[in-house]
Amino acid sequence: MSDRGNNQLFDAYFTAESMGEVFSDHGRVQAMLDFESALARAQARVGLIPQAAVAPIEGACRAELYDFEALGQAIASAGNSAIPLVKALGKQIAQAAPEAERYVHLGATSQDVMDSGLVLQLRSALGLIEQDLAQLGAVLAQQALRYATTPLAGRTWLQQATPVTLGMKIAGWLGAVTRSRQRLKELKPRLLCLQFGGASGTLAALGDQAMPVAQALAQELGLSLPDQPWHTQRDRLVEFAAVLGLIAGSLGKVGRDLSLLMQTEAGEVFEPAAPGKGGSSTMPHKRNPVGAAVLISAATRVPGLLSTLFSAMPQEHERSLGLWHAEWETLPEICCLVSGALVQALNIAQGLEVDAERMLHNLDLTHGLVLAEAVSIVLAQRVGRETAHHLLEQCCKRAVAEQRHLRSVLDDEPQISAQLSAQELDRLLDPANYLGQAVTWVERARAEHFALTP
Amino acid sequence: MSDRGNNQLFDAYFTAESMGEVFSDHGRVQAMLDFESALARAQARVGLIPQAAVAPIEGACRAELYDFEALGQAIASAGNSAIPLVKALGKQIAQAAPEAERYVHLGATSQDVMDSGLVLQLRSALGLIEQDLAQLGAVLAQQALRYATTPLAGRTWLQQATPVTLGMKIAGWLGAVTRSRQRLKELKPRLLCLQFGGASGTLAALGDQAMPVAQALAQELGLSLPDQPWHTQRDRLVEFAAVLGLIAGSLGKVGRDLSLLMQTEAGEVFEPAAPGKGGSSTMPHKRNPVGAAVLISAATRVPGLLSTLFSAMPQEHERSLGLWHAEWETLPEICCLVSGALVQALNIAQGLEVDAERMLHNLDLTHGLVLAEAVSIVLAQRVGRETAHHLLEQCCKRAVAEQRHLRSVLDDEPQISAQLSAQELDRLLDPANYLGQAVTWVERARAEHFALTP
Amino acid sequence: MSDRGNNQLFDAYFTAESMGEVFSDHGRVQAMLDFESALARAQARVGLIPQAAVAPIEGACRAELYDFEALGQAIASAGNSAIPLVKALGKQIAQAAPEAERYVHLGATSQDVMDSGLVLQLRSALGLIEQDLAQLGAVLAQQALRYATTPLAGRTWLQQATPVTLGMKIAGWLGAVTRSRQRLKELKPRLLCLQFGGASGTLAALGDQAMPVAQALAQELGLSLPDQPWHTQRDRLVEFAAVLGLIAGSLGKVGRDLSLLMQTEAGEVFEPAAPGKGGSSTMPHKRNPVGAAVLISAATRVPGLLSTLFSAMPQEHERSLGLWHAEWETLPEICCLVSGALVQALNIAQGLEVDAERMLHNLDLTHGLVLAEAVSIVLAQRVGRETAHHLLEQCCKRAVAEQRHLRSVLDDEPQISAQLSAQELDRLLDPANYLGQAVTWVERARAEHFALTP
Amino acid sequence: MSDRGNNQLFDAYFTAESMGEVFSDHGRVQAMLDFESALARAQARVGLIPQAAVAPIEGACRAELYDFEALGQAIASAGNSAIPLVKALGKQIAQAAPEAERYVHLGATSQDVMDSGLVLQLRSALGLIEQDLAQLGAVLAQQALRYATTPLAGRTWLQQATPVTLGMKIAGWLGAVTRSRQRLKELKPRLLCLQFGGASGTLAALGDQAMPVAQALAQELGLSLPDQPWHTQRDRLVEFAAVLGLIAGSLGKVGRDLSLLMQTEAGEVFEPAAPGKGGSSTMPHKRNPVGAAVLISAATRVPGLLSTLFSAMPQEHERSLGLWHAEWETLPEICCLVSGALVQALNIAQGLEVDAERMLHNLDLTHGLVLAEAVSIVLAQRVGRETAHHLLEQCCKRAVAEQRHLRSVLDDEPQISAQLSAQELDRLLDPANYLGQAVTWVERARAEHFALTP
Repeated sequence: MSDRGNNQLFDAYFTAESMGEVFSDHGRVQAMLDFESALARAQARVGLIPQAAVAPIEGACRAELYDFEALGQAIASAGNSAIPLVKALGKQIAQAAPEAERYVHLGATSQDVMDSGLVLQLRSALGLIEQDLAQLGAVLAQQALRYATTPLAGRTWLQQATPVTLGMKIAGWLGAVTRSRQRLKELKPRLLCLQFGGASGTLAALGDQAMPVAQALAQELGLSLPDQPWHTQRDRLVEFAAVLGLIAGSLGKVGRDLSLLMQTEAGEVFEPAAPGKGGSSTMPHKRNPVGAAVLISAATRVPGLLSTLFSAMPQEHERSLGLWHAEWETLPEICCLVSGALVQALNIAQGLEVDAERMLHNLDLTHGLVLAEAVSIVLAQRVGRETAHHLLEQCCKRAVAEQRHLRSVLDDEPQISAQLSAQELDRLLDPANYLGQAVTWVERARAEHFALTP
Repeated sequence: MSDRGNNQLFDAYFTAESMGEVFSDHGRVQAMLDFESALARAQARVGLIPQAAVAPIEGACRAELYDFEALGQAIASAGNSAIPLVKALGKQIAQAAPEAERYVHLGATSQDVMDSGLVLQLRSALGLIEQDLAQLGAVLAQQALRYATTPLAGRTWLQQATPVTLGMKIAGWLGAVTRSRQRLKELKPRLLCLQFGGASGTLAALGDQAMPVAQALAQELGLSLPDQPWHTQRDRLVEFAAVLGLIAGSLGKVGRDLSLLMQTEAGEVFEPAAPGKGGSSTMPHKRNPVGAAVLISAATRVPGLLSTLFSAMPQEHERSLGLWHAEWETLPEICCLVSGALVQALNIAQGLEVDAERMLHNLDLTHGLVLAEAVSIVLAQRVGRETAHHLLEQCCKRAVAEQRHLRSVLDDEPQISAQLSAQELDRLLDPANYLGQAVTWVERARAEHFALTP
Repeated sequence: MSDRGNNQLFDAYFTAESMGEVFSDHGRVQAMLDFESALARAQARVGLIPQAAVAPIEGACRAELYDFEALGQAIASAGNSAIPLVKALGKQIAQAAPEAERYVHLGATSQDVMDSGLVLQLRSALGLIEQDLAQLGAVLAQQALRYATTPLAGRTWLQQATPVTLGMKIAGWLGAVTRSRQRLKELKPRLLCLQFGGASGTLAALGDQAMPVAQALAQELGLSLPDQPWHTQRDRLVEFAAVLGLIAGSLGKVGRDLSLLMQTEAGEVFEPAAPGKGGSSTMPHKRNPVGAAVLISAATRVPGLLSTLFSAMPQEHERSLGLWHAEWETLPEICCLVSGALVQALNIAQGLEVDAERMLHNLDLTHGLVLAEAVSIVLAQRVGRETAHHLLEQCCKRAVAEQRHLRSVLDDEPQISAQLSAQELDRLLDPANYLGQAVTWVERARAEHFALTP
Repeated sequence: MSDRGNNQLFDAYFTAESMGEVFSDHGRVQAMLDFESALARAQARVGLIPQAAVAPIEGACRAELYDFEALGQAIASAGNSAIPLVKALGKQIAQAAPEAERYVHLGATSQDVMDSGLVLQLRSALGLIEQDLAQLGAVLAQQALRYATTPLAGRTWLQQATPVTLGMKIAGWLGAVTRSRQRLKELKPRLLCLQFGGASGTLAALGDQAMPVAQALAQELGLSLPDQPWHTQRDRLVEFAAVLGLIAGSLGKVGRDLSLLMQTEAGEVFEPAAPGKGGSSTMPHKRNPVGAAVLISAATRVPGLLSTLFSAMPQEHERSLGLWHAEWETLPEICCLVSGALVQALNIAQGLEVDAERMLHNLDLTHGLVLAEAVSIVLAQRVGRETAHHLLEQCCKRAVAEQRHLRSVLDDEPQISAQLSAQELDRLLDPANYLGQAVTWVERARAEHFALTP
């Protein structure tokens, strides 16, 4: 595949550069080579191969020595990437140390190389994601605190309801981040384990040395030794992908909220501005949510990719054809999309621009109706719940019908002014006084965040 | 929707009856009513409502008192199931105790009722699934042991490879079950928590009593109190669905393996027979894998349903329209499909019919080629790895070309007979002697199972 | 399957009643029975069975004669719905005319009954959908015309851009409806065809009479005779589902637009109000888009269901296990969801409430900026494009910075007032004068609609 | 993104090179530039811009002039690929002809460029796919004829049933190909149309010249002029993707069938062998279905990608954020996967290796039971259907129980030997005599193929 086949125009927009490197051809090949060199070291340690063979093998296990285009062509015949790579590796070793060639890849099967290599890549990916999530959590924890009491309209069904605070909204985003960090922590032992089974998974070719080699290999790679090879039991991988899917969904919600708040008609919260970012010379008022677009896009793409991985789980017997293949590009794509969403989320969270004045303005768009509940509750303590409810309902209807502010209608209603002074009404109709447990939610979400962050 | 709208023909085949009941209209309504009665008790406990109101409210909180068809019609106007149910509940209470009506549903919003009700249903669902998984694990652990050394052909790419054992295959199925049991255990604290936030999630209508009521309510329902309401943070639910998806996928693999093993051309392992099950009077040799079909079907359907739930995660602001609605039937459907798959898996695992003779017969279909590796390895210890490999390769090619058994070709090859006696060759070409770590894998999978099962 | 298993609470909200009946147990069973009675008639016509056998068979082919619960239980053993139904049908016939029993189901296989029955159901479903789409098209065509010149803000990236008209927006919805009507027309010949192949698809059991029976049967059912049986070639069905998916997506866009236009902060277009519909007694200003929710929900659920059907296409050999099963409930669910979305779309389209004043008000939210382009273009004709562009850019920036109306800034700019009179500026800043081809689009969309509607 | 970000290792295996080029960065940029040069020509034709501006614009519209990596970085700020490309294009033009720069991209919006460019790419993609499908159809038509009467076991539920022929099986594959060719033909007018609407879709910036420019532009590009711009009506694209999904599914069935037929235990039909293809030196009997793996993989991946496109349909107002973005890589990926599957399908179809002897051998695996129906039918003509059926049922059961061949059991049964001579039984138990309409199906599938192929 020459340069004409390159397809990376959107990579900088949709993928974190570090994650792109993990799953690049280079990253993929290097991870497989890391398996091969670790295998040599492990087999030398248990005495299966001569110690002298290790250095030449290790020396050949550098991705930059290989021609990826030729490899790609060979994959098309071989049906997987390990067969041609091991062949090329053998040739490479033979050039420097012909006697060492025979000691490479002993007892391993292609899928051992590919899957263990993948796990090494996923370990890197997981590290990047955990790091970004922790940072995102920290920023959100800060922002949630900062705006803990900044009121804006609550919105249900996209209709204004009683007020909430921006901090509480951000605490919601934070809670989801924290829970997914917890999930990653829990799945790690299941994910980061060796794949090593040989032709059919029995390691029979290694005879009595099978388990010692397996243990040494796991140690060399810093992976755990699973109960058994998992060539056609893919739940470890799909579980990880699913948690990435949860992260994508949670970040998608951030993107959705933000894009709605940035609407010209709302104008409450904005992505940070940057020169040339999402602007339009003829329409300087426009602030296109180019970061939120990535969040929404990832949340739209990952579910489909995930369903592919779940669909590919019923793999036949000891090695699947087709279903296994369906994973090879899909799982990396999920990692990349989530990494890109995290970059944008972090950028947005850090640079959040807030127009608290506009929030207050918007809170008054219904002319006080979103606070009718607040009045009703206090009134109920004086005239009984039903009477209060009925009175307020009447006043609200009148406010709507006559296009007046609720305050003015309430003032006109003698049964209400008899009970509530103008001052009291002022207080009740101030959103800042009807925020309920908003601050509590912020505190609790922050507490969960800090509990996970040493 | 009269009886003509019923659509349950395949329920007995695809869904466990117990799970069907959890997610029936009755189950759904009762769970919402359980929330309402618990709310009354909680509010009485903290003194928000009179203790006398509790009994009438509880008395009305029985699903059988309500007309589900009328409820269904009202839902179509209201846009959710809680509004009409609470209305009907109020009327029901009013009949018996008019003064109690005003104390129902205080400070709660529709989504509190629906989501907390859902969590109660999911707790039941989770219980059923954990129970079935534990039982399935136990049966698989037994069967894995029973067939730990029963050889059959390993198959990669649907081609025969070196032998494995049936027990090791079953151990693979078991391992997946055990891991998902572990996952359910881990997610439980995230899933089984109260939803209670009022109109916009601040609980403002409850004033200072918000947290005491919330705590009492969580206690009454036996749920934990989350960091904050999660009206539009759906990761808790989707995580559960994703683990159900992993279970569906793992069981789908069982179904796939089994249907392949049952093929007329393989005939190695069978679903248990039962009168009228999957048979055909004109074709008595046919044993249709009607149980495996359910496993494969569930593994095919759940991924799509899951992708819906992941797609529905970016819910707007404080309550979504449309995305929330997309969950209402989808999550129950996933629970039902997985429950049905578990019923079939358990039935299959318990009644597995094994034709070990046919397995041996099939192992010889390649005329010994699947064991060439075994000969090669021993030979290598005597003549060196390369010579051995080369010799075997030649013999294998000859066996294929001349359509002879590898044994006969090896006998003809003086370089081989010089090294390996007839007895040795007999031993090497016996699959039972080339099973590697099959028994170890069984032991390890069993150990993981028992570690989770007190 | 007792009543406790019923799960229909949301049917009235999510499904058209007529479609629910098509895919009810009754509808499913009747369609299979219609196949059996047509088969008897066809076989009598070609002389394969005695004419006298037809009446008793037809008499027994009424769904109401069968116990669906018992059928459901038998399906769980048989693995499909045809085997137990044919058995029950035989018994039913035998009661009235023992000699006729032997003539039922001759030469057919279970899948012939189930698939041809399904095609009959799909024909009904298709009819309903075509009818609803035609009516929806007609209403949209009318509304597009009515509001062809009603300006509102164009919105890209959820940011206001140059004005459009409501009619043009509706014309966009209409165009999608028209195209899908065209698609349904095109696929009909592929979809509405007989399934009839016998055990393995060869019709061997019917000998020389195979083709005559097949032709007569197709005639009896009003279906076409396909090139061959399609037991494991499911593209006909999936194509139909995919077009339903397109409809769901197009209606989802209507729902999305509408829910955004209904936002408290926009308030431009509303679903029709109805007593008790989406309202809230304490928040009378709220108009929950309960219809739009159904459109969005369907557009969220159908893609996942569709991916199941596409995933289930690679069906094995002459009959699949598991993949075929995965279709049974999925395809009906898609039909039902789309039917429900059509009901809501029609209701919304007919009762659309439009606040043209609010639209104009919102168009001025940017203080004229959305019309800067209009000024720039006319100015360009006088001072050159670059100068004009530069001038406007400066004015826009100033307007934003100084929070002034663009008109006022332009007035202050001598280079502009030298070229454009106050009257001209009035005209240019009036959205009604910058609507481009909005009316053309309406006309063209209407023309396409009427071209399809005789 | 440097070379380290490259991710193309599997491209040669999964994607046709020609399709890879269509959707390469180069292909994407060139298509957008083709739009810009055509726009200049169109606008010159209607006199909107000077004719002299055309050549410099055209001269700059060559993809090789642009730095894709820089473009990628700019996309990350701009949020789409058109803004930075148009900017770079302007600079490029300005170098050669400063006065021409101002005439580029007049009245167009980013999405016009991106979408029309995409349609140009899709036209190429469609051409490639139609070509491959036609060729595949031709090869399948030939092979279906060649093996029209070659018997093999029909298999339902993966159990042997009555015989079919390989030609009939291939005819099934052919039929699906033909239908999808028909579908592509039908959707072409909907797909291959211009996108041109300007900022909000009204083309207002072009005033009276809007329609003339639009018409001229459509002509220049060889696209049709749609009823209206379709910025947020994506059904045209998704329909195309869905038909590609049908093709993927149909080819997946080919892959599934083939991989099953290639099983060691079946060994009936094989992918063509090639040096190094799917082989194993130690297991020379292995013929890994590396082509079928691609077919199955594509059929597993495309459904998830498709569900993304369907999910992304409800795009907001006049331009979406996020949903539109979700298409950019997804639709090309579908095209690429289907192209790769077509390459493999063609290779397989052309080089199909058939072991007709093994087929006959396998047909006897049930010892005649799969032909019991054939005997039963002829016997019925002599002793009545019920007696015949009963007799055969007994004999079949005995054959199974006593592990004898059906023929031998029938010989022992006096009621049968009284009716059927040994010769007759020989004939009836010969699969070649019980193939029903297999040849008819081949003929009809071929006829449909040729009807579409001039």
